[in-house]
Amino acid sequence: MYPDEFPRNAWYVAARSAEIEQGRMLPRFLLGDPVLLYRTQDGTPVAMVDRCVHRQMPLSLGRLRGDNVECGYHGLTYTPTGACVRIPGSTRVSDKVRVQTFPLVEGDGLVWIWMGDPDQARPAQIPDHHWYTADGWSTAAGTLHMDARAQLLNENLLDLSHLSFLHPESIGSPEIAELPITTTWDDHTVTVRREMAGVSCPPFFTRVTGIDSPIDRQQIAEFFAPAFHITTTTVKPSGDPDDSRMCRQKTMHAITPETRTTTHYFWSVSRDYAVGDDSVTDYTLSAVAGVFEQDIAACEAIEHIIAAWEPSYPLELNIKVDAGPLRSRRILEKLLAAEGAAAGARPQDRFTDTATRAAARAWTERATILSG
Amino acid sequence: MYPDEFPRNAWYVAARSAEIEQGRMLPRFLLGDPVLLYRTQDGTPVAMVDRCVHRQMPLSLGRLRGDNVECGYHGLTYTPTGACVRIPGSTRVSDKVRVQTFPLVEGDGLVWIWMGDPDQARPAQIPDHHWYTADGWSTAAGTLHMDARAQLLNENLLDLSHLSFLHPESIGSPEIAELPITTTWDDHTVTVRREMAGVSCPPFFTRVTGIDSPIDRQQIAEFFAPAFHITTTTVKPSGDPDDSRMCRQKTMHAITPETRTTTHYFWSVSRDYAVGDDSVTDYTLSAVAGVFEQDIAACEAIEHIIAAWEPSYPLELNIKVDAGPLRSRRILEKLLAAEGAAAGARPQDRFTDTATRAAARAWTERATILSG
Amino acid sequence: MYPDEFPRNAWYVAARSAEIEQGRMLPRFLLGDPVLLYRTQDGTPVAMVDRCVHRQMPLSLGRLRGDNVECGYHGLTYTPTGACVRIPGSTRVSDKVRVQTFPLVEGDGLVWIWMGDPDQARPAQIPDHHWYTADGWSTAAGTLHMDARAQLLNENLLDLSHLSFLHPESIGSPEIAELPITTTWDDHTVTVRREMAGVSCPPFFTRVTGIDSPIDRQQIAEFFAPAFHITTTTVKPSGDPDDSRMCRQKTMHAITPETRTTTHYFWSVSRDYAVGDDSVTDYTLSAVAGVFEQDIAACEAIEHIIAAWEPSYPLELNIKVDAGPLRSRRILEKLLAAEGAAAGARPQDRFTDTATRAAARAWTERATILSG
Ligand code: FES
Ligand code: FES
Ligand code: FES
Repeated sequence: MYPDEFPRNAWYVAARSAEIEQGRMLPRFLLGDPVLLYRTQDGTPVAMVDRCVHRQMPLSLGRLRGDNVECGYHGLTYTPTGACVRIPGSTRVSDKVRVQTFPLVEGDGLVWIWMGDPDQARPAQIPDHHWYTADGWSTAAGTLHMDARAQLLNENLLDLSHLSFLHPESIGSPEIAELPITTTWDDHTVTVRREMAGVSCPPFFTRVTGIDSPIDRQQIAEFFAPAFHITTTTVKPSGDPDDSRMCRQKTMHAITPETRTTTHYFWSVSRDYAVGDDSVTDYTLSAVAGVFEQDIAACEAIEHIIAAWEPSYPLELNIKVDAGPLRSRRILEKLLAAEGAAAGARPQDRFTDTATRAAARAWTERATILSG
Repeated sequence: MYPDEFPRNAWYVAARSAEIEQGRMLPRFLLGDPVLLYRTQDGTPVAMVDRCVHRQMPLSLGRLRGDNVECGYHGLTYTPTGACVRIPGSTRVSDKVRVQTFPLVEGDGLVWIWMGDPDQARPAQIPDHHWYTADGWSTAAGTLHMDARAQLLNENLLDLSHLSFLHPESIGSPEIAELPITTTWDDHTVTVRREMAGVSCPPFFTRVTGIDSPIDRQQIAEFFAPAFHITTTTVKPSGDPDDSRMCRQKTMHAITPETRTTTHYFWSVSRDYAVGDDSVTDYTLSAVAGVFEQDIAACEAIEHIIAAWEPSYPLELNIKVDAGPLRSRRILEKLLAAEGAAAGARPQDRFTDTATRAAARAWTERATILSG
Repeated sequence: MYPDEFPRNAWYVAARSAEIEQGRMLPRFLLGDPVLLYRTQDGTPVAMVDRCVHRQMPLSLGRLRGDNVECGYHGLTYTPTGACVRIPGSTRVSDKVRVQTFPLVEGDGLVWIWMGDPDQARPAQIPDHHWYTADGWSTAAGTLHMDARAQLLNENLLDLSHLSFLHPESIGSPEIAELPITTTWDDHTVTVRREMAGVSCPPFFTRVTGIDSPIDRQQIAEFFAPAFHITTTTVKPSGDPDDSRMCRQKTMHAITPETRTTTHYFWSVSRDYAVGDDSVTDYTLSAVAGVFEQDIAACEAIEHIIAAWEPSYPLELNIKVDAGPLRSRRILEKLLAAEGAAAGARPQDRFTDTATRAAARAWTERATILSG
């Protein structure tokens, strides 16, 4: 089974920092809810439900008034904490009039959101990803969108065997398909590792590192449930006695459900080689986006199949390389069970997938117009 | 709750007179049903279900044969009263073979349809709207379409407070937002009124009346349930001793459900100033359509939210300016209850919104092709 | 009632032979299932479920490796009989790992598929259609797609009366509408016949046969349940003493459900006149496709009506010319009942029409890309 549900008591990436610009509103569906993201005048990011408490008008169709948001329909005005401070035509505003806001944490190029029980939010749970902005590293980053449920991408990223088949012309090579992997895990993470000694250098790495002889390559995929991945790749000329020519790459993948069956994909590739070389950054931007688009296309094709047969699609065959992906399902199921004591009562249990997808699409189009 | 149902024992505008042209068929979904509109050779408008009794072929894909309609599939031919007078290949046609027709009343630029129990149809119930074609008035008119349920627009039109926020650059101005409104009603109508003395003249009125000093403005929104509005606006230079420079404007809004969640919006603006001045008519056409498009965009954004959360979207906050809109819901609920003794038995209770919307869209595209 | 179900224990045309090219994969939804069609290196056509048993990846996104198919995600490799012969990362492959394949029969320009119980497949049940490739005949052929359920087209083809109304400018003429038809049938076929003596020659036949005087015309529509039609047309100058100037035409229509409410339409027109004259073939290609597009448009308009009202659309009136179409429904109902002892258990009973249609559309788009 591919779950199309997601825990809410968890940190998800809401945006890359660069996407939330001063003076602009960024409307975006997250976990099935419409969210308005913006920055106060001192730069602090704010997230509130993008729906006025009066007549459900999206606040993102209104106006920023300093740090506040004025609804574009009848002028109710909200502060960054969600308090309503003006109701045109009414002289008093009750303290109870509020729009829901969400805890945010910004750091290392990302803005994280907590959409569950706010009392359980612990910023310390956010995985480390300091390479994004650290000295000695250069980073290429982007945001993609996928018309498929998030878990398909979680599983793709925990599976090292697809590189040879889905990405043979960039980061995969045929001989690594049969090399063994090791899988380890705990309650919240899964780690999959493959050591590849003396293999041919895939085209992407030749291009960015300049190595065209056989390499020793190591790849470690780490999953931080429910929605974050760091893939570490090291490459060095095979048999190099020390590690002086070793190239390290940290790839971050933040997989945030937009709706039950659509997904935001925030990514970055940080490298400790060719630091500051813009041509390598530019090449990485386009090459990596190309690789990720192949992953997205695969997940979307599978989503089509699942959606047409759900809930009774045929049993899947599990094979050796599925150890990591299957473990991620187990962890998600446990997280869902933990908060789903009240299953059916969680916000996303109620929404209609088709209508929510249509709304999410409209919000994305509006975001494009607003950032116009 | 925003009802997505509508009374059937009521007059709705089916079309502006100008839309039904001699010798052409106009297919259009109304109240969830496919309707064919056309004129007989003497100009009388006809409305029949746009579905052949033989194999459900839309009659609008057939041909007008004089006053009759010939089905484009196997040639069944119907008179304007719905009687079938030819079945190719059969020598006798039973009197019982009929397609359903609907009572129509044409007058003052509009064609009204009655799609409920024909015995209850009383033309006298049609609201007065003679300004559309009266001497001493000039009129600009148009037809718009909205991907949202009709009631959202009914409520928009009964709410005078949104002008300052949704239309600040045309017919709204900031200071009127806090001025009081009065709301009155009876069993079938709601009237909302706002007096604005000494306020700044909004851009639209400066342009069409030439007044650029402060004005005394009066706005009266009248709703005739379930689907018709007259908004009366008067504007004169503030403190003008008599009414010699008063400009009057009567805006008609006919809100006809196309399906549960899509709506036809027929409108006209009649004025007693700049009569016969085509440049003012042209400017009004584009400026007013622009204003109404803003209303439509707001309603469509709200419909996205409602559709995704229905039937459990969060409780809405009601504020002072909602008196008129809320009263319109009460009247509609009463009308629905009155005919809904047999709830679930009314034709529109059965239809699938998604499929009906798809059909309605196909009909609209065909209308565009037919009017070529 | 228009059934939206279809028997599975039957031969359906999966493709025209020309559509399955050597070295290319042709993905196509058939009877609601994703199917991959290709040819082995000796030209034998193969049909397998287009869904990897590992993670549901469409195999059509993978690669042909000689006669085998390699999944594009993790490299599972299948032979033309569906046996899996490679699982990267695993050393042994169980015999039980198989993808489902379907019996195919290729002949006379068509590839037939059997998607029901393979033990019941009898190639002898395939109707004769040798004119497609026979000496002394020239053929124009094509493939169309319809957004409507297959039965609407089955009934269209068994009804000779619509020619005068739907195709008056090509193959119909007004006076034939009232001429009698005869209808005969047995358990698996329906035959409808009309003799037309001394009628005017419709525009299409004048163009291709050169006859512009009155003609004697005979039209015989044969239906081979559940999905195949041969229409035989003969045309000769009226009163011609012998048949020396008789022109014969055999039109094949293979109606294969793609999903419950979408349909593949494979057709060919074979003629024994103007044999080898490419200009007549070219003209036939475009003229006949035009006629069939009219039939498709009619069926799609009716599908819109049915879909919006289903399952409670108004009773249809049956008239004389419906004898053949109604008989075809009876035969289909019997076939469905015969295999539907286990109704609800048949594969297509489970699928969601909307999601399956979306998937089928994605498959068609991929087929277009793959065939470049
Ligand atoms: S909907 Fe926001 S102020 Fe009315
Ligand atoms: S569907 Fe109208 S005549 Fe047959
Ligand atoms: S999905 Fe086909 S090999 Fe994994």
